[in-house]
Amino acid sequence: MTNIVSPAFVETARLCADAAASRVVRHFRIGLASDAKADDSPVTAADREAEQAMRAVIASRHPDHAILGEEFGGAHASGPWCWVIDPIDGTRAFITGRPSFTTLVALFHNDVPVLGVVDQPVTGERWVGVTGHKTLFESRSLPGTIGTRRCVALAAAELSCTSPDIFVPPFGEKFNMLRGLVRRTSWGGDAYAYGLLALGQIDIVAECTMKPWDWGALVPVVQGAGGRVTDWSGGALTLESAGDVLACGDAVLHAAVVRELSHAPSFR
Amino acid sequence: MTNIVSPAFVETARLCADAAASRVVRHFRIGLASDAKADDSPVTAADREAEQAMRAVIASRHPDHAILGEEFGGAHASGPWCWVIDPIDGTRAFITGRPSFTTLVALFHNDVPVLGVVDQPVTGERWVGVTGHKTLFESRSLPGTIGTRRCVALAAAELSCTSPDIFVPPFGEKFNMLRGLVRRTSWGGDAYAYGLLALGQIDIVAECTMKPWDWGALVPVVQGAGGRVTDWSGGALTLESAGDVLACGDAVLHAAVVRELSHAPSFR
Repeated sequence: MTNIVSPAFVETARLCADAAASRVVRHFRIGLASDAKADDSPVTAADREAEQAMRAVIASRHPDHAILGEEFGGAHASGPWCWVIDPIDGTRAFITGRPSFTTLVALFHNDVPVLGVVDQPVTGERWVGVTGHKTLFESRSLPGTIGTRRCVALAAAELSCTSPDIFVPPFGEKFNMLRGLVRRTSWGGDAYAYGLLALGQIDIVAECTMKPWDWGALVPVVQGAGGRVTDWSGGALTLESAGDVLACGDAVLHAAVVRELSHAPSFR
Repeated sequence: MTNIVSPAFVETARLCADAAASRVVRHFRIGLASDAKADDSPVTAADREAEQAMRAVIASRHPDHAILGEEFGGAHASGPWCWVIDPIDGTRAFITGRPSFTTLVALFHNDVPVLGVVDQPVTGERWVGVTGHKTLFESRSLPGTIGTRRCVALAAAELSCTSPDIFVPPFGEKFNMLRGLVRRTSWGGDAYAYGLLALGQIDIVAECTMKPWDWGALVPVVQGAGGRVTDWSGGALTLESAGDVLACGDAVLHAAVVRELSHAPSFR
């Protein structure tokens, strides 16, 4: 498994992030009218331009690979390789001027993510994860060292989640139960929070209603930092997963969280 | 009113932020054990070192001024001037490695904030607000232009709040009512969110249980960018305020939000 991700694939992922960065940054914190879009899942010009640039990079280097992107959907191919990309993860953060949105690039092999890049183009932070290898963290100015931290006790754990608005039943009740067990919960962050977990700053991220382009890149990044990423039942994430994602820096903590989340909230 | 804040006072505020920055940054994203502190309002070494450095700057330049700080409390003086400082606003963000914490420096004159500095030492962003003057935004690398944006309709407004955990009755119910009226709510940010409002990226920030060191610096910064900051009833904030804070980029929107918040939630 460790050798199937060739250096050329890693280079493609980096080039994708580079291509997205230049398109995304020029739209960041410009004077968007507050009523520019009426829907709740804004698709900005940055999103579309960046995804097209990323698709062009992949198509030119790997014409036989499939591509699945948030903005333009899927392009089928017969082989085992599928690139899953999200030009701006954290649209809400992007739109409100917060440098915590990211560009996500994942490569799946037979429905399993084996390569992931998380890129924050404004702060210049980049996480590169390859299955079987230690994750790399590169940063223009912000500090950070790769490696999740030890934290075996739920009562000592830092929990993070993007927004209380993401939860659908039964996940909201389960999440609130988890909130009551941990030391502290912080909000906001999107994929960036998983990067912080890979830097040993957060112990648990639990979210639901996520799409493959939201979580694909995170799996190799977190696993290569020493953490675990599964669904809320502890099962491996695949392209067919329902979208509930649980990341923990410590495997012992991960087992404890899965155990707690398995409790039916309606019986509490 | 506009001339009482001397250039020397502004320089003091800047020197305070500089003094805090060097102490704070060296503690950011280092390998803190998750169970290093057991309480919910962590006081880190960075907090204490930075506040002492800020106090030393003020005491040496203005020995007749009072100082009120989060970590070391109040120092009384007989005159009208009181510095109100918070070395790390957003301790939760700081502890989880997010570059959205800030150092806050405010100068009050007879209980009214007339000078404020909001400083993000990692990204190198700084807002300087002086009553009666246009706010300055200085940034090492991130873009941004001072000026709140026009947004008169609640249904088009971007609302922001640090955490759903901050609300005590009746503010939580009122906030949830407001959430139902706006276009979108984003979470996290602490004082940084008010800086984003001053850059025209957010339309409303509504929070409660805030202390003078949490909001003092924000008033001149937001007002000098064209926005309004009051309590939830529309009243001016003073050292005696209860801690509910409402900031809007547009004065028309501010009036609409105050009107909505005045509804007794128990009648809904």
